[in-house]
Amino acid sequence: MSEFDTVRAMRWEDGQLLLLDQRLLPGEVRWNRYRDAPAVAEAIRDMVVRGAPAIGITAAYGVVLARLGHGDDQDAVLADMDRLAAARPTAVNLFWALDRMRPLVLAGADAERLLAEARAIHEEDIAANRRMGELGAALIDGGAVLTHCNTGSLATGGYGTALGVIRSAWAQGRIEAVHADETRPWLQGSRLTAWELVHDGIPVTLNCEGAAAALLREGRVRWVIVGSDRIAANGDVANKIGTYALAVLARHHGARFMVVAPTSTIDMQTPSGADIPIETRDPDEVLSLAGQRIAAEGAAGWNPAFDVTPADLVDAIVTERGVVEQPNAQAMQALMSGG
Amino acid sequence: MSEFDTVRAMRWEDGQLLLLDQRLLPGEVRWNRYRDAPAVAEAIRDMVVRGAPAIGITAAYGVVLARLGHGDDQDAVLADMDRLAAARPTAVNLFWALDRMRPLVLAGADAERLLAEARAIHEEDIAANRRMGELGAALIDGGAVLTHCNTGSLATGGYGTALGVIRSAWAQGRIEAVHADETRPWLQGSRLTAWELVHDGIPVTLNCEGAAAALLREGRVRWVIVGSDRIAANGDVANKIGTYALAVLARHHGARFMVVAPTSTIDMQTPSGADIPIETRDPDEVLSLAGQRIAAEGAAGWNPAFDVTPADLVDAIVTERGVVEQPNAQAMQALMSGG
Repeated sequence: MSEFDTVRAMRWEDGQLLLLDQRLLPGEVRWNRYRDAPAVAEAIRDMVVRGAPAIGITAAYGVVLARLGHGDDQDAVLADMDRLAAARPTAVNLFWALDRMRPLVLAGADAERLLAEARAIHEEDIAANRRMGELGAALIDGGAVLTHCNTGSLATGGYGTALGVIRSAWAQGRIEAVHADETRPWLQGSRLTAWELVHDGIPVTLNCEGAAAALLREGRVRWVIVGSDRIAANGDVANKIGTYALAVLARHHGARFMVVAPTSTIDMQTPSGADIPIETRDPDEVLSLAGQRIAAEGAAGWNPAFDVTPADLVDAIVTERGVVEQPNAQAMQALMSGG
Repeated sequence: MSEFDTVRAMRWEDGQLLLLDQRLLPGEVRWNRYRDAPAVAEAIRDMVVRGAPAIGITAAYGVVLARLGHGDDQDAVLADMDRLAAARPTAVNLFWALDRMRPLVLAGADAERLLAEARAIHEEDIAANRRMGELGAALIDGGAVLTHCNTGSLATGGYGTALGVIRSAWAQGRIEAVHADETRPWLQGSRLTAWELVHDGIPVTLNCEGAAAALLREGRVRWVIVGSDRIAANGDVANKIGTYALAVLARHHGARFMVVAPTSTIDMQTPSGADIPIETRDPDEVLSLAGQRIAAEGAAGWNPAFDVTPADLVDAIVTERGVVEQPNAQAMQALMSGG
């Protein structure tokens, strides 16, 4: 436990950014070392690090690397920030973190000041996760839960969003069993979520996405709990492909559907889910596995990385500022304006 | 095309049964040779051959091997038939085929007579598939279709159930695009369905199960078309895990849901889906892939091979005897009694 308490997706060390290579987990724990922002952008694109809050924090550290590398050449630093922003399109936390760093860059802040800001973003995210863990756990009162993808320490600054709620609720004895979708095509559930939960001593049972409906039909799962890559102003939720199916299935079976995300995931500039850009990744991620072709040659593949769950299928959005039940535009506005 | 027209899952040759090892497809085309019934039972259990009609036909040929091996020792032949029946629990076609062979065995039929019966079962299945192809295709009028698992030549005597409908409808210009779930954990969609369709020159696009909801939401898919391993007397349908989710999602999105299966799949002795035994397979099939562990050590896995779709989510059951729309106990009874 104590060892794992300190496991993080990213670490700043000796003027360099270290990223835990999540593509190799759980088989190998390898830290990659980054000295410049374009390499960080590539690491985000290639999914060395993934998870909306984690890539935001990573990008913030990337700005520090840009400042260290380019010195007072502000244009070069800003160009690197554009490269970081272009790494992946859906998770708004990436742009949010860069937007927070930008005024400092424009004001001529030195690397030390930028590093302090990146560290603040990182620490605030962990604190937000802890707070969401408490708020979300309070909604759970027995039964099993089902989660999707990885939303734990590896997807955030530490602790996790949906997985943070599961950690808190488990510690409080509010959950009887944790189920996790394996989450094709990247298998974040099997590889990352299971790894984190096993380390925490929380029993986890994996299922293929196709089995989630049969699981829900058994009636033991009372909450489906997921993270988000972007929440629109009306409460529509973009998250890992497969999330929307779970929302429909949860509603059909009378289970509830909880989205856990810090307010840095909420994009009030995006009116609805239809306006969220959804990344479509290389079909080879579906057609191949571990470098081996699994699909018949000649077959095409469709590989959207995210889907959109409409707000009316969401029972609760849990943020560090509070819980929005039955989200809609008015309730999201009230949350974000502190009303 | 002509080469593939003759591709079959099983073949009788020189007093032996040959099975195309479907675990190796699409990478390798290897025929395994069987000389006795217990080895055939093992091949069914280990999924050398799979698909409800295909394992029924395979078991029928297995009875011929038992007769050849045991001669007039009827008890030994019947014991081998019990071994064949115990290979897998859900697909009723297995028991149906053995039930058809049993009176002949009990009447002392020789191997030649038993082989003629097995061949008749095989040929009748192909003929049923062709008929279902026509009947099912007539229900389709444009748009895309989505299928699950493999229901083609490899899952039947030849041509296919759901895939037979897709073949017929494609040939008649009634389908604009074919989508297929990859179908975890065995990837029958990626490995087998795509292989068959590519051979037929029918374009196919694979998706992870998690993406099916987003695909349906786009509105292009008008029919979800699947096979079945057992249809209960009330019209409930057992089929490959993941089918039930598609039925719920189809209904949610206004797509229609078609089940294609010969009457040998209909089990009037099983009142409802709740009475169908659902095989749970080794969790390692979920936790590992191609002998490599993919999930974190210490994680459990849940691996039901099938699920049950309630009749009220089924728009049409297509059999060789006709189409049952909005199936229920009365309509199934009418179909089976020729009413």
